[in-house]
Amino acid sequence: MYGYAMKKKELQDRLRRIEGQIRGLQRMVDEDQYCVDVITQLNSATAALRAVGLGLLDEHVRHCVRESIEKGEGDEKVEELMSAVARFAGR
Amino acid sequence: MYGYAMKKKELQDRLRRIEGQIRGLQRMVDEDQYCVDVITQLNSATAALRAVGLGLLDEHVRHCVRESIEKGEGDEKVEELMSAVARFAGR
Amino acid sequence: MYGYAMKKKELQDRLRRIEGQIRGLQRMVDEDQYCVDVITQLNSATAALRAVGLGLLDEHVRHCVRESIEKGEGDEKVEELMSAVARFAGR
Amino acid sequence: MYGYAMKKKELQDRLRRIEGQIRGLQRMVDEDQYCVDVITQLNSATAALRAVGLGLLDEHVRHCVRESIEKGEGDEKVEELMSAVARFAGR
Repeated sequence: MYGYAMKKKELQDRLRRIEGQIRGLQRMVDEDQYCVDVITQLNSATAALRAVGLGLLDEHVRHCVRESIEKGEGDEKVEELMSAVARFAGR
Repeated sequence: MYGYAMKKKELQDRLRRIEGQIRGLQRMVDEDQYCVDVITQLNSATAALRAVGLGLLDEHVRHCVRESIEKGEGDEKVEELMSAVARFAGR
Repeated sequence: MYGYAMKKKELQDRLRRIEGQIRGLQRMVDEDQYCVDVITQLNSATAALRAVGLGLLDEHVRHCVRESIEKGEGDEKVEELMSAVARFAGR
Repeated sequence: MYGYAMKKKELQDRLRRIEGQIRGLQRMVDEDQYCVDVITQLNSATAALRAVGLGLLDEHVRHCVRESIEKGEGDEKVEELMSAVARFAGR
């Protein structure tokens, strides 16, 4: 039901799996596997990285941004958040 | 210094300019202009739309999300926000 | 089965529908509709624009790039194509 | 002047550097570094992965697609390419 929150343990597990995918890519390039298959595997690693990014953004809003707002000091945090979202969304 | 906040008037001006860009694209297709030039123009319209999207997200965090947090009812809003960010970021 | 090719007529129909979506967005902003609903509608217009972009890229590869390759003059076209793909993919 | 083509050696070097960035992310999460800094580092790894993706796409167009077109068998390859571009561009 709530898909973005990740505990530290889950973040680490996912990052380790992504590290494995990157090593898998090195193997595929080494073995001259078909480009389209390598790109498919690369897209899957990128998607996994972006899912971790959403988990981190979620964590950030849920803790840092929320606490700043509760203390009445949210402006700067909101600005920083939007800038992180913009870079994450690729612009 | 703060680049995402947009007043209603600015949102409307930008949307009107994007509407003009879309009509420009129709003209370019109609006149069989070179595909790469049409794609360049289309990328520019997409970037303008996404800038408006960031303006709307900024507005949303600054008002709806912040007010919910201040009232101690932020959980649902944060969840909704992250889902909007995920779809905006294209996944 | 083949989803990206678009005839000129289809490109125009889609661009006209996108123009309508942009006007819909202006109305939503004007009526102060809920930000998340406006963002959802904006994401839908962006996705429609990108589908047109893929149609244009497909057209470009199928005609301009292919013809250049057949004439043994593909290098420059491939370079131009990759630069268009890079900008389309947002980097 | 031509930025996407990558030799096998360059692909491998870049993938190894990305593997290092992923391990750096694990360290940052482990040390509870500030979320926004982790996201910034993650965006940088994603951008590096996507640059490798463009290198692979370039390679693919320059060799597989071109050869198929030269043999008069380009249709299937163009279709496969557009589908790879669509997934790479995130839709």
